[in-house]
Amino acid sequence: MYIAVIGAAECESGLSDIAYKVGWEIGRRGHVLVCGGLGGVMDAAAHGAHDVGGLVVGILPGPDRSPAGKWLTVAIPTDMGHARNALVARAGDALVAVGGGFGTLSEIALALKMGRPVVGLETWGLDEGRVEGPGVVKAATPEEAVRLAEELAG
Amino acid sequence: MYIAVIGAAECESGLSDIAYKVGWEIGRRGHVLVCGGLGGVMDAAAHGAHDVGGLVVGILPGPDRSPAGKWLTVAIPTDMGHARNALVARAGDALVAVGGGFGTLSEIALALKMGRPVVGLETWGLDEGRVEGPGVVKAATPEEAVRLAEELAG
Amino acid sequence: MYIAVIGAAECESGLSDIAYKVGWEIGRRGHVLVCGGLGGVMDAAAHGAHDVGGLVVGILPGPDRSPAGKWLTVAIPTDMGHARNALVARAGDALVAVGGGFGTLSEIALALKMGRPVVGLETWGLDEGRVEGPGVVKAATPEEAVRLAEELAG
Amino acid sequence: MYIAVIGAAECESGLSDIAYKVGWEIGRRGHVLVCGGLGGVMDAAAHGAHDVGGLVVGILPGPDRSPAGKWLTVAIPTDMGHARNALVARAGDALVAVGGGFGTLSEIALALKMGRPVVGLETWGLDEGRVEGPGVVKAATPEEAVRLAEELAG
Repeated sequence: MYIAVIGAAECESGLSDIAYKVGWEIGRRGHVLVCGGLGGVMDAAAHGAHDVGGLVVGILPGPDRSPAGKWLTVAIPTDMGHARNALVARAGDALVAVGGGFGTLSEIALALKMGRPVVGLETWGLDEGRVEGPGVVKAATPEEAVRLAEELAG
Repeated sequence: MYIAVIGAAECESGLSDIAYKVGWEIGRRGHVLVCGGLGGVMDAAAHGAHDVGGLVVGILPGPDRSPAGKWLTVAIPTDMGHARNALVARAGDALVAVGGGFGTLSEIALALKMGRPVVGLETWGLDEGRVEGPGVVKAATPEEAVRLAEELAG
Repeated sequence: MYIAVIGAAECESGLSDIAYKVGWEIGRRGHVLVCGGLGGVMDAAAHGAHDVGGLVVGILPGPDRSPAGKWLTVAIPTDMGHARNALVARAGDALVAVGGGFGTLSEIALALKMGRPVVGLETWGLDEGRVEGPGVVKAATPEEAVRLAEELAG
Repeated sequence: MYIAVIGAAECESGLSDIAYKVGWEIGRRGHVLVCGGLGGVMDAAAHGAHDVGGLVVGILPGPDRSPAGKWLTVAIPTDMGHARNALVARAGDALVAVGGGFGTLSEIALALKMGRPVVGLETWGLDEGRVEGPGVVKAATPEEAVRLAEELAG
């Protein structure tokens, strides 16, 4: 199974810890972790998966691999700017959102449009008057987030 | 100026009337209207701009122009699926969102990430705890929406 | 009908004259001209179509419209780098190649892969041992090139 | 180092053997093999790299991983159709082309446009009157192809 972890390239250390644990749990369960390949939440999640021997794929917005985080197993430069967010959403059987700004919100929305489930930790709440289906499923802990992602994608 | 109108491919007639008026106002003011080229809000906005002699560009998700709405001046097939939402967001100097589902939310978020202003009519409210900057600027009428889009993009 | 004109962003004046005439002929026949929106062959073809009142669409590789040629009716920034070549190939019912480098060759190959006919004026010859189908159909003059493009796309 | 192997999704067994050996050599030397993730040359190269314990990334044109070859370590669906060819070209520090049709030619041209070196085995010859730089560097054997790719990307 492929699980994408999405979140901001710059984040406070609390979110970084959460993202690390999400990545660790994804790797421990033998899933491929997909992310945007840069810093912050992406890097922390990659770090976690790496530490437990997991496979980590980063899909980068720029034309080369130079800004790729050091914990990635595979780094794919796209030179497609923010359009690469659609590739991140597409690549996950489920997504786990940790915090995040507008880029993360775009990935949440693209994933839901594509029919991919999204689990959230301290991330965007969606306008309840407009959401169809479960929207972003809230999790209380990193472990629960990954377990929910598994279940919802299954 | 290029103004993108975003909204669902299927919508109730009330939103369709609003979208028509947004398109009409965009065309009347001499701007290029960009949309996703399909039905619903996109088609209604295109219709409005067409009726006042405006130029309308549709950026389509599929591999050919066959599903293009009949009011488009120019139809660009992309064969990029939902990743074409990034092209719609990119093409507008400002965006006007009318109603909408997850696809529209992804365009709102991508536009804000790219620094494009977004004006909203009966559309997604964004989680106020996470928005940085003005987010989606609410308008009360189609005329106000287009005027705000002009001002914010200027 | 949409006809894409492809060729290098920098070209000698002889090719520029040919591209101008191709664009002029496309516009005169009432077709939409699509190009990559930059200089050289693209700009000359856009100029020709513009002078006869034709509609010209430029699909740009960068994130904004600032490098767009001045003869475009519509400029679409993509921020997709060379991947925008696939959009140019996709947008034409037929393509006319004038001279060109590797970017042009990529558009020729993408168009042929997509089943779009390609007509050539002083452009790439393709390896005859590998081409399936007509490949690049040679034309002797700009007028013939546009006429052939019309016929092959019809 | 990342080396992309490009070639047709359907190919005769002679090319398949060559592609297998190219993949095997890429894996043996510890490089990541990138390909389009489908059959023919892509599958044979992936098979070769897999058999020597190499890491194989497939970048797929469709919306899901179902058509992915079974030897891939990582499969990335893009839903971008032929525009994904730009991603394959972008992902390789160098490319090795084995046989191929118009899709392969587009990847060769895109790679050369991006400044990526391309080594060829029984593949497209390029129009010598138009090529700038080395173009497709011919190799006599799979081993030589991979060695050349390494050198040219170094």
